[in-house]
Amino acid sequence: MTGTARTESTETLPGDLKDLYRAIHARRDVRGEFTGAPIPAEVLGRVLGAAHAAPSVGLSQPWDFVIVDDDAIRQAFARHVQAERQVFMASLPDELATRFADLKIEGIAESTLSIVVTYDERRGAPHVLGRHAIADAGLFSVCLAIENLWLAATAEGMGVGWVSFYREEFLRELLSIPDPVRPVAWLCLGPVSALQTTPDLERHGWRRRLALDEVVHHNGWPGGPPADRALAAPRGASS
Amino acid sequence: MTGTARTESTETLPGDLKDLYRAIHARRDVRGEFTGAPIPAEVLGRVLGAAHAAPSVGLSQPWDFVIVDDDAIRQAFARHVQAERQVFMASLPDELATRFADLKIEGIAESTLSIVVTYDERRGAPHVLGRHAIADAGLFSVCLAIENLWLAATAEGMGVGWVSFYREEFLRELLSIPDPVRPVAWLCLGPVSALQTTPDLERHGWRRRLALDEVVHHNGWPGGPPADRALAAPRGASS
Repeated sequence: MTGTARTESTETLPGDLKDLYRAIHARRDVRGEFTGAPIPAEVLGRVLGAAHAAPSVGLSQPWDFVIVDDDAIRQAFARHVQAERQVFMASLPDELATRFADLKIEGIAESTLSIVVTYDERRGAPHVLGRHAIADAGLFSVCLAIENLWLAATAEGMGVGWVSFYREEFLRELLSIPDPVRPVAWLCLGPVSALQTTPDLERHGWRRRLALDEVVHHNGWPGGPPADRALAAPRGASS
Repeated sequence: MTGTARTESTETLPGDLKDLYRAIHARRDVRGEFTGAPIPAEVLGRVLGAAHAAPSVGLSQPWDFVIVDDDAIRQAFARHVQAERQVFMASLPDELATRFADLKIEGIAESTLSIVVTYDERRGAPHVLGRHAIADAGLFSVCLAIENLWLAATAEGMGVGWVSFYREEFLRELLSIPDPVRPVAWLCLGPVSALQTTPDLERHGWRRRLALDEVVHHNGWPGGPPADRALAAPRGASS
């Protein structure tokens, strides 16, 4: 039912839908295409405003955004990422290590600036509505904000690259982030020469994207018992 | 610098930007406005396609989407949520409990269908590029997909409500989700009579939104040492 709709079909949509889907499908995790051109303050304001408009558990808005344009901080982080790149490479079998060696994994120096997004579990606590049963729900909210930021930046003609080759403790110390605030992402941001139509990791043969059909299921996990049997079984909790 | 740009300024933007920001700012966490009207298959396909187009660590695409339109499953889940609502209410001081009693926390029965989004840490493993240092990076990816889904649904004239009053183990059993796959969200989806302009929790006096200025910082945490001192200090990791 759901796997037949294709991205291409968005061409026939009204403008508001087409524009949103264009941003969603054009968005890339950028490494090599940053130009370093300046970002007007009002553009940065809109992008951050988009992030801040994200949904959050119990309206806790548990995110902070640390804009990093200091060269010395960015260089220190880039050196750390380089070291973590070696750690990962050493864990790979030879064939994968060879393939990985060609991949660019960050554009920290080339991008205009970086934004570190953090999670503060204390915001709205202790009575965060919707978090009592799922401790990670606050962390999830921060990620929703990151995707808003990413799409807004894409629509503004910029690129975003999420760098995750780092240890949280290193980044916490680098930016004096107090415990228990947790760094969630280092995002490189800025104008780009272009956005690739195919993700870097697919272009370089690291991994191919799945078809939508493979990840959509109906009323239960594939191969699980039919719904009526599942309904007889749940014993995991209080209902 | 960044706090001065207002949502209102999007009125002067070109169409593609205005439409994206409209979806981002109009999006709500819906409980009471679902109409139950059917969702055309092509619309559902586009919304799921938007989710599936999200960025993911190492291009692992670790999400699955279980569409739940079976009434018996939804009723069983709603009963569980009702019980968890009582658990949370019992944890509140009297004044908050009174305020909470008036809040509607889910639209499971009234929405057209639900989508359960899961995280499978095995996808792309063991060599997930970008996950060796941050185990949660895969979970973060799933949340990015959820926000894409949410925005696409909003642009399509629908609403989404994220229900988080549940125990993961209950939902895993209900849908026969195998270990180690983790349910991340139960999302109610469907056409709505309208989207509120102010979040429910703010309208009902539960919590007010923060100003953007309060969560944006520059080159480090507010009150932390200046960048040059921070750079001398980091000892958290390998760089």
